[in-house]
Amino acid sequence: MMFSDTYRQYLDVFHEALNRFVQNLSCEPPVLKDSMTYSLQLGGKRFRPVLMLAVADLLGVPQKEIVPFALALELVHTYTLIHDDLPAMDNDDFRRGKPSNHKVFGEGNAVLAGDALLNTAYEVLLKECLLGKNQVQATRYFALCAGINGVIGGQSADLLFSAKEDFSEEDLLFIYENKTAKLIKAATVIPAILHGGKYMIEFENFGGLLGNLFQLTDDILDEESTFETLGKSVGKDKEQDKLTAVKLYGLSGCKVRAELMVSECDQLLEGLPFDTSFLHALVDFVKDRKK
Amino acid sequence: MMFSDTYRQYLDVFHEALNRFVQNLSCEPPVLKDSMTYSLQLGGKRFRPVLMLAVADLLGVPQKEIVPFALALELVHTYTLIHDDLPAMDNDDFRRGKPSNHKVFGEGNAVLAGDALLNTAYEVLLKECLLGKNQVQATRYFALCAGINGVIGGQSADLLFSAKEDFSEEDLLFIYENKTAKLIKAATVIPAILHGGKYMIEFENFGGLLGNLFQLTDDILDEESTFETLGKSVGKDKEQDKLTAVKLYGLSGCKVRAELMVSECDQLLEGLPFDTSFLHALVDFVKDRKK
Repeated sequence: MMFSDTYRQYLDVFHEALNRFVQNLSCEPPVLKDSMTYSLQLGGKRFRPVLMLAVADLLGVPQKEIVPFALALELVHTYTLIHDDLPAMDNDDFRRGKPSNHKVFGEGNAVLAGDALLNTAYEVLLKECLLGKNQVQATRYFALCAGINGVIGGQSADLLFSAKEDFSEEDLLFIYENKTAKLIKAATVIPAILHGGKYMIEFENFGGLLGNLFQLTDDILDEESTFETLGKSVGKDKEQDKLTAVKLYGLSGCKVRAELMVSECDQLLEGLPFDTSFLHALVDFVKDRKK
Repeated sequence: MMFSDTYRQYLDVFHEALNRFVQNLSCEPPVLKDSMTYSLQLGGKRFRPVLMLAVADLLGVPQKEIVPFALALELVHTYTLIHDDLPAMDNDDFRRGKPSNHKVFGEGNAVLAGDALLNTAYEVLLKECLLGKNQVQATRYFALCAGINGVIGGQSADLLFSAKEDFSEEDLLFIYENKTAKLIKAATVIPAILHGGKYMIEFENFGGLLGNLFQLTDDILDEESTFETLGKSVGKDKEQDKLTAVKLYGLSGCKVRAELMVSECDQLLEGLPFDTSFLHALVDFVKDRKK
């Protein structure tokens, strides 16, 4: 099957779960649900849930076990985007070609929509997943990736270094690893935990590499792409003199690094006793993406 | 034993857990831990954890089972205060007599400190509590109270009605129930769930009443107290023409209602086959408190 057909199949599975979730989401006042679903339904590649579903498929983890995690992961990813776009953070007025959450609903509601998505991720997991030891361990891993030693620590460092004049490669790698790679690790490691843990280290390494590649290509796109293609402000990192890979390694240096990371990903996948052809193609997709 | 001695005993148990938590809290960059612990250590009555420990004691739930929930509850309560104080929400510069989190660390860091406390509450519960069926059910109840049909829905309604000219008693009761009473219900219901569920309904009713009384006395204090006593801005509700019980029922109407709620609490407690003398005194403490 073509890569794009397989991607579409996983996307359909995820969208079915997302639509069911949105339909059953019931709360007052209406603005709370509206602001949550606005950002959830802005689209995007749904890269994290697709990756998670693909790894689960590879390992034979049943869809009904992995789907709540894929949903919770997208809820957390969406909340981080809402809070990161706030004026006090990255101050972005656009996301996926549409006005950011706070531009539509106001800052107060945007803060609450983010809080709500984060808490609801745990409601989803606690409602559907905590049946056995592996599920509990997977939920713990999820919480770690979403937490202060994960995406929150990464965003905190990003905020701190944005205000500083000097920074090191170490600082950059810390932000990459935590702000971006941790949630992508969650997508690859949680299926491995549910599978029993045998390939956990391999998928942790793979998720880490892929996550770093994802952020590297993000920095390249901020330099090379347009608002029309990307759906969000471009060139802002440079304008704000922000710590990015492009600033540190230069554009061509970044591209060489990206190729190296693709090779490392491929090598890792070749060591696994599974048909990893879709994951190989997904790595290329991350490297070659235009948005 | 005197009420204040027993209160102090529970407070000591909670503070020991909080101090251990803060000592073991490890993350980068340092500002993230600093902003989290700043608000956690501002003090306050610790009413929710003390109430939770007292109900657990009454029901014979071991302290090591309830303490992680008491800690998680205070983490969530603290995050809601940080986010509520933001300029886009209630815009409060002071909390417990000290500058609010965003006045010390800036708005971006305050948003992240709140996110971090919320996520860490789940990390605490997932690390320490999910051993059996009752623990899972208690954690689910916790998530519901903290969620969109709990404190987040209440704050969203509060934000909405603050911007409206007209509101009804129903609106006010919705805000009271969700913004304030749900976390106080968590304090009374979670011990009952851990105990096996037999007295869950009684403690849900008691927590709901006590939570509503707590918010009613808050509104009275905003009218009658001073900044020096309360440690936060007073008279602001009136100034902003905000929906409060005082606006709806008048000051003396509120006081009559408070007395009625105390009687209802007492009646509920008298129906329980336990020594509820501390809880009786705790109800009076809520009614008579000066801050």
